[in-house]
Formats: sequence, C-alpha cells, structure tokens
Amino acid sequence: MAETVIRFGIIGCAEIARKISRAIILAPNAQLSAVASRSVEKAAAFAKANNFPPPDAKIYGSYESLLDDPDIDAVYVPLPTSLHVKWACLVAQKKKHILLEKPVGLNVGEFDKILDACEIHSTFTFAGDEDFLKNDIRVKPDLDGLGALGDAGWYPIRAILWAADYELPKTVIALRGPVLNEAGVILACGASLHWEDGKVATLHCSFLTHLTMFVTAIGTKGTLHVDDFIVPFNEKEAPYATSSKSWFNELVTGWEPLPSQNMVFVDLPQEACMVREFARLVGNIKVNGAKPDQTWPTRSRKTQLILDAVKTSIERGFEPVEIAN
Amino acid sequence: MAETVIRFGIIGCAEIARKISRAIILAPNAQLSAVASRSVEKAAAFAKANNFPPPDAKIYGSYESLLDDPDIDAVYVPLPTSLHVKWACLVAQKKKHILLEKPVGLNVGEFDKILDACEIHSTFTFAGDEDFLKNDIRVKPDLDGLGALGDAGWYPIRAILWAADYELPKTVIALRGPVLNEAGVILACGASLHWEDGKVATLHCSFLTHLTMFVTAIGTKGTLHVDDFIVPFNEKEAPYATSSKSWFNELVTGWEPLPSQNMVFVDLPQEACMVREFARLVGNIKVNGAKPDQTWPTRSRKTQLILDAVKTSIERGFEPVEIAN
Repeated sequence: MAETVIRFGIIGCAEIARKISRAIILAPNAQLSAVASRSVEKAAAFAKANNFPPPDAKIYGSYESLLDDPDIDAVYVPLPTSLHVKWACLVAQKKKHILLEKPVGLNVGEFDKILDACEIHSTFTFAGDEDFLKNDIRVKPDLDGLGALGDAGWYPIRAILWAADYELPKTVIALRGPVLNEAGVILACGASLHWEDGKVATLHCSFLTHLTMFVTAIGTKGTLHVDDFIVPFNEKEAPYATSSKSWFNELVTGWEPLPSQNMVFVDLPQEACMVREFARLVGNIKVNGAKPDQTWPTRSRKTQLILDAVKTSIERGFEPVEIAN
Repeated sequence: MAETVIRFGIIGCAEIARKISRAIILAPNAQLSAVASRSVEKAAAFAKANNFPPPDAKIYGSYESLLDDPDIDAVYVPLPTSLHVKWACLVAQKKKHILLEKPVGLNVGEFDKILDACEIHSTFTFAGDEDFLKNDIRVKPDLDGLGALGDAGWYPIRAILWAADYELPKTVIALRGPVLNEAGVILACGASLHWEDGKVATLHCSFLTHLTMFVTAIGTKGTLHVDDFIVPFNEKEAPYATSSKSWFNELVTGWEPLPSQNMVFVDLPQEACMVREFARLVGNIKVNGAKPDQTWPTRSRKTQLILDAVKTSIERGFEPVEIAN
C-alpha cells in the first residue's frame, strides 16, 4: 500500500525554512505545496531559490491566505518563538497539522496554550548561529526571549531526557555565572539535573564559544558518546562511540577492551526522517481517523518544563527548582 | 653529556607500584635500586614478579631500612593517603627526593606539612579500580578518606587546571546529590568551578559508573577533546580531536570544516616520561646544585586546594566556596 502523501505549507522564510523545505521534498510521504511570506515577492524568491516544484507550488503574500488554502494538510512554522502562540493557534483553528520550530514557547504556559489549541504533533530542528550577538532575533527579548537556553540548550536538555528514557528529573539547578546581554537575554548558561534514583546530568549552552555538541551517557556498565547529535558532521553518516565493561590491563597502562567507534549509514537526512515521521502520523489521522499520537508533544513539553526550570533557577539566584509535571 | 642516573627505592608494594617500577626501569635516567615492604618475603616476591634487575636491586623488610640506605637518591611512596604525611616527612628528613602518589594529602593542610618538610618534586599516577566498594582502602575513612574525589577527581581537577593554564578558579561549588557510603566516604560527586573572567568548568568523579575519562575544552574559536587523558587506550599513542572555526554548511546539514582526529605517537609510556622528568629535576639538584623546581608542587597544591573546596562545599550543603591561594 502506498504511503499517504501529506501536503505542506510553510509560513515565513527564515533561513531554517530552507533546510526543512528540502527535507519535505526528500521525504517520500511529503509534498511541498505552498509558501507564504509577508510579501509575494519574498515568497516567490524563496520558492525559486529553494527548488519548490513548479508549477504546483503556490505562492502566498500573507500567512493567513496560506492557512485558508484547503489543499494544505500541514503547516511548518519557523517564526520567532514569541510569535508561536499566535500563529500556532491560528493554524489549529484552521484545522491543519503543525510542525513547529523549537523552542515551542517562551515557557510551559505558552506551550500548553498551543497544545490545548492544537493537539499538535511537534518535532524540532536546529537553527544555531553565532555571528549575531547584536542583531539576531535570538538575542532580542521581545522575539525569541530565551536566548541560548531556548535556541541551543533545547538540544542537550532533550538529549539528556532521551538518555533518561524521558523520565523527568526531580530537581534542576542552574550553574552560577550565566552570561546575559544588556537586555537580560541569556547568551550562555549551564545547569545540573538530579533524579530521585541518583542520576545526575549537567548541560552547557552558549552563543559565545566554538561550535560544540556532544552527549556522553555513563551507566554502571557502559558509556555512550556522540559528538554531532544535533547537526551531523556529514548527513550520510552517524558516528558514535561505545564502551562496555572496559577496565585497565594488568599494569594499568592501557584499556581492555577499547571503546568501539561505530557508524550508522543513513538513506535520508535526519530532517527528512523527521518530516517522514510527521507525515506518517498525520497520514494516520487523515486516512485512518487515528487519535493524535502524544509521543512527541509529551517529550517536547518535558523539554520545555526543564528549560523553564533552568530559567527560574537563574532568576532565583541558582536555587534548586523542583519539577512538578 | 650522559644524563645523570637517579637511583630509586620504593616503599610499599601496592598494585600501582608495579606500574611505576616498570616506568623506572624504562626511563633512561632512572634506575630501580631497592624495594621495601613490611616483610622481606613480600618485598622479595614483589621484586621477582616485577623484573627488578638482579643482582643489584636490594630487598628491605622495613620502610625505615630503605630510607637509611645512602645509595638511594629518591623514594617512590605508593602508600595510602592517610600515611602520606608521616612517611613523606620521614623521607624528607633522610634527605631523599620523593615521588608521592596522588592525592598528596587528605587536605591542603597536610599537603603544606609535606611541602614544608620536603620541598618535594611531586607528580602523580593513576590507581583507579572499581570492584572494591566494600574492602578497598580507598573507601575506608581512616585510610584514603577522600574516596572518589581524591582517587578519581584528582585527574579532572588537574586537567581543568591545565586547560585554564593553572589559573585558580574564584569559586567552587559541589553539585548536589553526591553518593557517600555508610562511613561517609565519597563514592561519587561533581562540582562546578568558576573563574573571574567567566570561564566555567564542571567535573564528575565516581566509583560507581563505567570507566570513562574525558576532557573537553571549549574556547571562543576552537574545541579540544581527549578521551583517554588519564590512562591511555594504548600506551604507544595519544589520540585527540580538535576543531577550529567550524560552522555549518549553507543548509545546516553538515559541518565545515569537520573536527580533525589527531594522533601523537610516543616512544616512552607516560609514566616513564614522568619518571624521566622527575629524575631530570633530581639530577639537576644533585649534580648542578640547582634549587628545587616549584612547577609540579605548585600545580599539585592548586589541585589539592580545589579538591578541599569541593569537599568543603559538600559539607556546607553545596554552598559556593571561595578559593584563596
């Protein structure tokens, strides 16, 4: 049986939309149908520059007109975080599925407002940059507002939750010494997360230091390390290192066994996998009348809860913040 | 000019002494001359099992008799930490140079007592193990006392200081949730270190999780990562990864340039390099009448200061502890 093909529209022409429009073109069960910007010219230029399939792809000069197009099943929203509540709720009112950029909201209250309106299926992509400390929307309190915490911290928080099998920590404590800009937006910060069973995680996020992304999970009997867990070094490959039951040799001059370096080869870029998963879930609702799957919104809400707790801990002078789900 | 050869004695037959006796044999400017244990039989068995050069190497049935041997230039002391002050001071009284296992003391007060007595040249080797939670000396409050912090934490603290060019942090804060045994000895803990200029470091140490050692230093323009900085995976090689001015490609689907994987090949095992450095410094004093070099004791004292601060922060309920040099 052929997969149901889901027709996507995009509102907003942010840089990151270029990556996701390619992913929509690559995903076998997705189709790029329309793009909207605040002007027809901007939308047309974006469509042309990003290989929108002519002549089918439609061009809209306003977000509202795209949302009114009955041929659109799902809308990708790469707008600044502070506009998420407004536009995500409008997409929901128009009875369309939504693929929303991270962070979902400025806080878990906004997250829940969107979730209540939408029963969304959300998943997330990267939008990192670092040559932008003066002008980028991510350092303006009225636009993205959460700065490095929302833009960069989202990923290590999610990776940590993944490693903890999505069990929420009991307590979150921000590290001292976060860096804020004059407007109070976080440019760099860190935190420790503490679980009831004794698990501990630390995270750092920063707009101020060299591109670095890793997750190391250390268990009783083994260790996993990934160095490119957000944007892959190379989109065809996924390298990771594992070690298990390693100890020292007799004279403590070497390891036995050595950690192993592993590689997974992938057919589709990760964001195309994401679009395929999204379109599969939407297809399930559209064709089979399935109820919206809660897996991704639940994971995202947990991520946002921790993000909120880090921000609260900073505001409260690095006091521990208890997580109540 | 040939290097001056320094004659070593070892007091105590700990496991780690096997590694260092090999290093003394391998170092071109060092010679293994004597071993002492609390019985002649034990010392003889140790010498035989560890290839002490017959017939020159002497066997002593007490530590004191080795210290009285005028042919010994330097003494390696792998005794439990709680015995360091007593034996290190005695070695100093006998006017011999001392190579002392880490951690130097149970606290910086003990460290200074040893330093006052000795003007030592100290450097350190690894003695990790993990299948010993019940019986090993490192979990007994009357022997090593500092548990995972002294035995395992010493290394990440030193690595962090190395990355900070040995500048002391201003503040040290233990992470909540350290694991202690019934006797109050630390089995696992963590801390964050904060410098005046905004640098931050975090460290974890544990007797409870899989063998893992890494240091990642992230600067404004580059990142360095080493996965085997304490005991090498393989003693002939030193692998490390660096990246510099990496950013994403145009579509944010990959990195440009990729981090580079590098390898240094070494002639001598690292502990033999340490013994060679130690013997070089001793030779300089012995032959040239040089003053004791302060590089290593200074670095070790800073390490001990931070170790003390982590312990103090745990004892004070995770309050920040200011470092005064």
